[in-house]
Amino acid sequence: MERPYRGVWPVVPTIFTEDGELDLEGQKRAIDCMVDQGSDGLCILANYSEQFLLSDEERETLARLCLEHVAGRVPVIVAASHFSTRIVVGRCRRAAEIGASMVMLMPPYHGAALRATPEQTREQFARAGEAGLPIMVQDAPLSGVEMSVPFLALLARELDAVAYFKIETPQTAAKLRGLIAAGGEAIEGPFDGEEAIALLADLDAGATGTMPSALVPDLLKPIVEAHREGRRDEAAAAYARVLPLINFENRQGGLRACKAVMREGGVIRSDHVRSPLGPLAPEVRAGLLELVRPLDPVVLRWGR
Amino acid sequence: MERPYRGVWPVVPTIFTEDGELDLEGQKRAIDCMVDQGSDGLCILANYSEQFLLSDEERETLARLCLEHVAGRVPVIVAASHFSTRIVVGRCRRAAEIGASMVMLMPPYHGAALRATPEQTREQFARAGEAGLPIMVQDAPLSGVEMSVPFLALLARELDAVAYFKIETPQTAAKLRGLIAAGGEAIEGPFDGEEAIALLADLDAGATGTMPSALVPDLLKPIVEAHREGRRDEAAAAYARVLPLINFENRQGGLRACKAVMREGGVIRSDHVRSPLGPLAPEVRAGLLELVRPLDPVVLRWGR
Repeated sequence: MERPYRGVWPVVPTIFTEDGELDLEGQKRAIDCMVDQGSDGLCILANYSEQFLLSDEERETLARLCLEHVAGRVPVIVAASHFSTRIVVGRCRRAAEIGASMVMLMPPYHGAALRATPEQTREQFARAGEAGLPIMVQDAPLSGVEMSVPFLALLARELDAVAYFKIETPQTAAKLRGLIAAGGEAIEGPFDGEEAIALLADLDAGATGTMPSALVPDLLKPIVEAHREGRRDEAAAAYARVLPLINFENRQGGLRACKAVMREGGVIRSDHVRSPLGPLAPEVRAGLLELVRPLDPVVLRWGR
Repeated sequence: MERPYRGVWPVVPTIFTEDGELDLEGQKRAIDCMVDQGSDGLCILANYSEQFLLSDEERETLARLCLEHVAGRVPVIVAASHFSTRIVVGRCRRAAEIGASMVMLMPPYHGAALRATPEQTREQFARAGEAGLPIMVQDAPLSGVEMSVPFLALLARELDAVAYFKIETPQTAAKLRGLIAAGGEAIEGPFDGEEAIALLADLDAGATGTMPSALVPDLLKPIVEAHREGRRDEAAAAYARVLPLINFENRQGGLRACKAVMREGGVIRSDHVRSPLGPLAPEVRAGLLELVRPLDPVVLRWGR
C-alpha cells in the first residue's frame, strides 16, 4: 500500500502459552489470520498487545518475528512509547531497520504522576522522527497526557514525521474534525481507534482509517470502504450490525476479547493474558461468543 | 545490620554522563559517598534513580554493579516494580541472587488508567515474596493506586515477606499511626519517604526509618537517632535546620537536586538527567546551593 495509508489496521495481540511464555507459532497464526481477514495494515506492541506486560527483550523478539513473518504482505506499525526519549529513539531506529512502515507513539508518561509537557512531547517526537519513519500520534487516555487540537496540529505542521493521528479520547469525532480543520494537509491520516466503537461518527468526521482490535477486521473493512465510496447508508447498517459485539468487547472484554474469539476459531491454542490481568469471566466469554457467532467472521472459521 | 532494619536508607541516584550514558565510575563514587555519609542502607532503581528512564538491560547492569561495589558495607534494597507480575518476580529473584537485602514494590500500575485491584496487588506481592526477600511496600502517588490502611495491614499479616512500608501519600503520619495500630507486630518497619519532608511527624507517628534522597543523609541520621533515643527536642531542632533545604528539594528540584549537589561536591562529573526530564533552571540550582552550603554536609566536601 502506498501513502497515504488508510483503511483497517488492527492491533496484533501478543499470544502466550497457558504458562505465560511467548507462543511464537501462535503469534504467526494470529498474524496470518489477520492478513487473511483483509487487514490493510497491522500494528504490533500496542496496548492491546499487552505492551505493558512485555520485557524489552520480548519486544525485540516479537518485533523481529512479526516483521519477518508478515514479509511485506501488509505494512506494519510498531508501537514504541516509553517515558524515556532515549528508549523511544532506539525503538524507532530498530523499527526502521526491520522494515516497519510507521511507528506509533503516545506522549511520554509514567504512572499517574509523570506526564510530559507539550515541549517535552514535541522534543521526544522530533527525536523519534529522526529514525526516518512516519509517526502516528496515539491520543489515548492511558497516557494521562491531554493533547489539545492546536497542539496536535502544531506537531503535524512542525514535524515532518508526524502525519497520522489515532484519536481515542472522549468525543473523538469533534476532535478529528477540529484536527483536520486546524492541520489541513499536514494531517495525512486521521484515524479512529478504541476497538472502532465510534467508527461511523469518526468516518463522518473525516477519519480515513481505523485501528481496532483483531476481533473482526473483516467486518469493519466493508464499513470503511462503503463510507469512502459514498454509500453511507450501507456503512451505517453494517456498523449497526457489528456494534453490539464491539460495544461488548470495549466495555466487558477489553484486550482479552479478540484472544478468546481467536481461540474459539482455532487460530491460537491459548487466550492467556499475563498477570496481574486475569482471564475472562465465563459469563463474559459466553456473552462474547453469543454476539460473535451470528456475524460469522473469518476468525471463527479460520482455524477449523 | 540485623533485622529489623531502621534508620536512614537513601535512594541511590543513577549517574549519567553528559551524553546520557550510564557513568559506572560516577555510580561507584556516588555509592561510596552515600556509605561515607553514614547511610544505614541504600535503595537502588527507585523513582529517584530515574527507574522509569532505564532499559531492562541497564537495570541489570546497575543492580549488579551496585551490589558488587557496596560489597556488604550496608544492606541494599532493590526497587522492582513493574505492571507485569512475571517481570516483578524475575527482578525479585535476581535481587536475591546478587545479594540484595530487600525489594521495594509499588502496586502494579501502568499509565493513568491501569491500576491494580487489591486482589491483583496481593497476588503480585505474594508471588514476589517467593523470591525469598522481605518486601517494602511503597505507598506513593506515582502508582495512582490507593491502598487503604486495612489493606496494607492485611498484606503485612497475610504475606510473610511483606514487612516494611514506605508511606509517601498525603497525611503520612496519620497513615503510619493507623498502619502500626492495625498491623501490630507484622509491621516490622514503618518508614518515612518523600525526601524526608515529613520526617519529624512520621517519627512521632512511629516510623523507625526513612528513605530520603541522597542529598544529605548525614544530616538526617542525627534526627532519627536523637528521636529514637528520646531526645525529641534535639531531633526537632535538627529537622527545622534542614527543612528549608528539603522543602526546596521536594518542591523545586525533585530528583535533580541531589545530583546537582553531588556534582558541586565533586562526587560526580555530570548531573545529567535523561530526556524528557531536563536540567535544573539556573535559578533553582543557585537556590539549592545557597540552602545547602551553610549546612556543610559531607557531600559538599567528599570529592574536594
